[in-house]
Amino acid sequence: METFVIEQTENEKTLLRKDVFRPWPKTRRFVKVCLEGIKRVLFRVGDDWYFLFALGVIMAMISFTMDFTVSRMLNAHRWLQQELKGNMLLRYLSWTVYPIALVAFSTGFAQSITPHSGGSGIPEMKTILTGVILEEYLTIKNFGAKVVGLTCTLAAGSTMFLGKVGPFVHLSSMIAAYLGRMRSSVTGDYENKSKEHEMLVAAAAVGVSTVFGAPISGVLFSVEVMSSHFAIRNYWRGFFSAACGAFMFRVLAVFNSEQETISAVFKTNFKISFPFDLPETFFFMILGAICGVVGCAYLFCQRWLLGYVRINRFTAKLLSSDKPVYSALVALLMASITFPESLGQFLASRLSMKELLTSLFDNRTWWTLSQNASLERPAEVDPNNLWLEWANPQFTIFGTLLFFIIMKFWMFILATTLPMPAGYFMPVFVFGAAIGRLVGETVSYIFPNGINSDGVINPIIPGGYALAGAAAYSGSVTHSLSTALLAFEATGQIAHILPVILAVLVANAITQKFQPSFYDGTIIVKKLPYLPRIRSRQINSYKVNTETFMNTDVKVLSTEASFDDVLMVMTSSEDLEFPVVENTESLILVGKVMRSQLRRFLETHESQQHLQMSDSKITCQGTLKDGCSIEPVTFQLSTWTSLHEVSKGLSN
Amino acid sequence: METFVIEQTENEKTLLRKDVFRPWPKTRRFVKVCLEGIKRVLFRVGDDWYFLFALGVIMAMISFTMDFTVSRMLNAHRWLQQELKGNMLLRYLSWTVYPIALVAFSTGFAQSITPHSGGSGIPEMKTILTGVILEEYLTIKNFGAKVVGLTCTLAAGSTMFLGKVGPFVHLSSMIAAYLGRMRSSVTGDYENKSKEHEMLVAAAAVGVSTVFGAPISGVLFSVEVMSSHFAIRNYWRGFFSAACGAFMFRVLAVFNSEQETISAVFKTNFKISFPFDLPETFFFMILGAICGVVGCAYLFCQRWLLGYVRINRFTAKLLSSDKPVYSALVALLMASITFPESLGQFLASRLSMKELLTSLFDNRTWWTLSQNASLERPAEVDPNNLWLEWANPQFTIFGTLLFFIIMKFWMFILATTLPMPAGYFMPVFVFGAAIGRLVGETVSYIFPNGINSDGVINPIIPGGYALAGAAAYSGSVTHSLSTALLAFEATGQIAHILPVILAVLVANAITQKFQPSFYDGTIIVKKLPYLPRIRSRQINSYKVNTETFMNTDVKVLSTEASFDDVLMVMTSSEDLEFPVVENTESLILVGKVMRSQLRRFLETHESQQHLQMSDSKITCQGTLKDGCSIEPVTFQLSTWTSLHEVSKGLSN
Repeated sequence: METFVIEQTENEKTLLRKDVFRPWPKTRRFVKVCLEGIKRVLFRVGDDWYFLFALGVIMAMISFTMDFTVSRMLNAHRWLQQELKGNMLLRYLSWTVYPIALVAFSTGFAQSITPHSGGSGIPEMKTILTGVILEEYLTIKNFGAKVVGLTCTLAAGSTMFLGKVGPFVHLSSMIAAYLGRMRSSVTGDYENKSKEHEMLVAAAAVGVSTVFGAPISGVLFSVEVMSSHFAIRNYWRGFFSAACGAFMFRVLAVFNSEQETISAVFKTNFKISFPFDLPETFFFMILGAICGVVGCAYLFCQRWLLGYVRINRFTAKLLSSDKPVYSALVALLMASITFPESLGQFLASRLSMKELLTSLFDNRTWWTLSQNASLERPAEVDPNNLWLEWANPQFTIFGTLLFFIIMKFWMFILATTLPMPAGYFMPVFVFGAAIGRLVGETVSYIFPNGINSDGVINPIIPGGYALAGAAAYSGSVTHSLSTALLAFEATGQIAHILPVILAVLVANAITQKFQPSFYDGTIIVKKLPYLPRIRSRQINSYKVNTETFMNTDVKVLSTEASFDDVLMVMTSSEDLEFPVVENTESLILVGKVMRSQLRRFLETHESQQHLQMSDSKITCQGTLKDGCSIEPVTFQLSTWTSLHEVSKGLSN
Repeated sequence: METFVIEQTENEKTLLRKDVFRPWPKTRRFVKVCLEGIKRVLFRVGDDWYFLFALGVIMAMISFTMDFTVSRMLNAHRWLQQELKGNMLLRYLSWTVYPIALVAFSTGFAQSITPHSGGSGIPEMKTILTGVILEEYLTIKNFGAKVVGLTCTLAAGSTMFLGKVGPFVHLSSMIAAYLGRMRSSVTGDYENKSKEHEMLVAAAAVGVSTVFGAPISGVLFSVEVMSSHFAIRNYWRGFFSAACGAFMFRVLAVFNSEQETISAVFKTNFKISFPFDLPETFFFMILGAICGVVGCAYLFCQRWLLGYVRINRFTAKLLSSDKPVYSALVALLMASITFPESLGQFLASRLSMKELLTSLFDNRTWWTLSQNASLERPAEVDPNNLWLEWANPQFTIFGTLLFFIIMKFWMFILATTLPMPAGYFMPVFVFGAAIGRLVGETVSYIFPNGINSDGVINPIIPGGYALAGAAAYSGSVTHSLSTALLAFEATGQIAHILPVILAVLVANAITQKFQPSFYDGTIIVKKLPYLPRIRSRQINSYKVNTETFMNTDVKVLSTEASFDDVLMVMTSSEDLEFPVVENTESLILVGKVMRSQLRRFLETHESQQHLQMSDSKITCQGTLKDGCSIEPVTFQLSTWTSLHEVSKGLSN
């Protein structure tokens, strides 16, 4: 039809300008039809791919802008520290006041706009994806609060030891929900709910991929963390959107002349020809076990503290009324500890989060380096020798690494109680890398010439252990395996793939046995609605049937229900949904109807009664079937359904 | 209880040997209890993890043994060719007879044992995973046929241009089914069906991972290709099993001194510091588009030929009665074409499949190399300069690559019609790499000094294009995105991740729009039961309800059905399952019952009647509810259910 109209107007134009030279009319028409076809295929309003593309690009731009702003703010702080070289007190003040101000502002600003903007947002997203409606979480005002708050949190640097993955998943979901609303206002309302869900799953992938520039692991992470069953269709959507996001994110870095070409975020230089020796696999597995055990301890302590600050009188009062004060106090404590002239010198506290990770992934052996170099700490951070921040003549690098691990363990747990927008994945990743580095340096200290010293010397690379540690520890805390892939995508090499996967598997096996994941733990503490996983090992669980916990006393409506029936049912129950049966004798379930629908039904019915009074000829009685749209139900439970079937059905 | 028994016997022993020195009884008891606990946790008969571990290790061993045997057979053939240097006729005979004999034997042997052993097996596995029972496919005799047949097929080398991924997925599933049967015979029969399904999903991952040593992409491939919805629980199982398999596979290579340490199967040496320039992304996307278009053409031709050989009188007759003859004829044709003294010299036909891939992933630029070296073809294949096989003074490398692509296009399609065990993924991968190499060499010919030649020269690496081409083409043919990851895992580097993903996305977008995937196409041609994907773009599909295609005329049984009712229903219908309703008036669905169950019910009922006759006091009437186990039904369709809901429900 469209083509026809266009051709007609073309003909009119031709009539007007008959003298213009227009050869090959057939070819031209063919080309025109082709172009029309392409237009029809590509430019369809409301097509998914545009929205997914837009989602990826928008998130990449936000991520890049935030990184850019944060790095400028961190540089300003570093410059200030250097300028105040002479005066210790001023330096201390500048070191502490800066994060205190930022953290207090972040908390105050975010909380004043909406109390839902605190924390990472992943537990809430997880709850939303299981079907619970938490409307406040996806509003645009939450978006503003989260962006500003998160920028301030990140600008406080490694003192606060917080990241940005979680909030980015949340931000991305908000953008997706917003785009979805935009689309449905343009195209009409078909299949809205299911599309929304699809977009949210893709959004989670985009969030991770635009932080690390890692599309595949972003998708996998979202799959593993977000849902318990998922559709391959969503996987493709997520992949497309995440690839666009990651590509845009890295291209912006090239345009900003940060990098020569597209490359990994935390680039490494491991020796690829001989990354590790076969017997080292054993140490990698030990590292996995260590990470698993520490992960269990961390998860337990974190959940305990998160509950404790809510019942302790002092902190509970602060958290209920003066949230910024609480944040400021915690920031004061942390900044005092990390002050580089005091304990901070053993904590590599002058490095930013990114520098911490880059230094831990160093391909050189610190122990060997520290034997040959003077360990004078430079006045400024040397970007080419970040490891010098870890070196200490008395403590040795083992001491500093161990001290870092012990101190950051409780400091990070404390930081997770702060009610401001912050991500908890990156700190966990760095912490794991430190554990791995310590193990790696120890192994390399024990075997200075490599393990198989028959002729060829293949020294041990502690950076590989750091990589495995980061993947295993973050995997164990989040109960996911995709962190292994994330470590490779983020570092731009994949040589250690098998030992890293083994370490991640061992760590996961330990943590999954003893603790719920970080996100599930937060859901439990925050008392969000939650569908617990059934451990398939417990054979007794197969014998539980629905009968034991099913509520059989529900109000039903028949399809033939009249005004009075509906009114009676609605007044007698507060339920939001009602089952609809074919008739009250047979009780065959045909669908469900929402309370809001019933209210509308009652209203229209009333108006019809009024109509009847005015014009007595119309005898429209109006049953439920005619007046309401009844949604069909595909998932049915009888009293014999097993617990496993229920769980499977509910998570779909 | 167990502990108690052990302690008792310990005490008895202590009584017997009182004089033995046994200090710290408390510590010893504590250690003993701990060990008991570990034993209880680890050594539980029938635990999943043992079976998954066993599955991975067994498949790795099979894969390694097969690779080893095949490489010996290929070496023998190569040696024979060299020994016959003088006599052209003898060389031709040895070149052709070898693959003919192997292929004919492979076909004959496999077909004589079971006709189900031909082809890759992935389409059939896909069908099985959607819930259709194809019992013959997972028997152990099929296993033997497939292993022996596949070894012969692979030993025919690059002449036949076939791989092993598909059959390995099939083999792995057979092992999994066998292990599952073993387990259920040990532990009893709980939740057997669901467990079996879980094992099969893991098996598919193991199959891919033990061929390429690539655990993560193995899991992803199985997820993408095998199912349309899947549970994260299965993902973890698959991951564990695939990691064990891949690790074992690579460790065996180290033990066999093939490699110094664990590394990638097709190791590359790309320059990682500057893998590609930003504008090159554009060429990568063009490469993706080319791969997509060629993929469409391939899928169309392949499906057409697969149908054609079944209707053409000559081939249909051969395929129905003399399958080995058909295989031998095809092998004769292929071997004659690839004979190195004739057309084979332009097809690099002296290289094995692995060497083909390694040569295409070469990090050097062939065009530059061929300018500086004499293009004298060596008498033997030079393992360090495999590219010389592609060089030709008259044709140039562009000519040979193009000729290779054109010839292998139809030769491979012809090879897929052979009724013997063979995989079709690896040839597709190699073919894609050749397309990529051609594009890469062309780009590097146009821009000999790299694209941004402002001072620093960063030459273009055609190997990167080969990688992208392999991933994009195989991705487009199989409709999967995980081939990108597979390419990285198999080559041991990940520097090109973003352009490769973009190429794969473009190729997939094109092929998914116009053609069903290779596996779906085979399912269609073989007329296997198949649940087609609903394209979410077709908005009309949202309006289709179950009513339009639902069969409402089914026989139902009530829970109170007596012997006569059951007998009547069973004689009047041939269905394998019957719905059970609460009573025939209300028609409330409570579950389903299998025909076999009903038969047993009838039998016991009869015997009870006999019993009644002999002992007239017992008046057990026996309704269906008491005599049969009724399986609950959770997925219910009403006539209003939409098509999308049905599809979602069925694929779960």
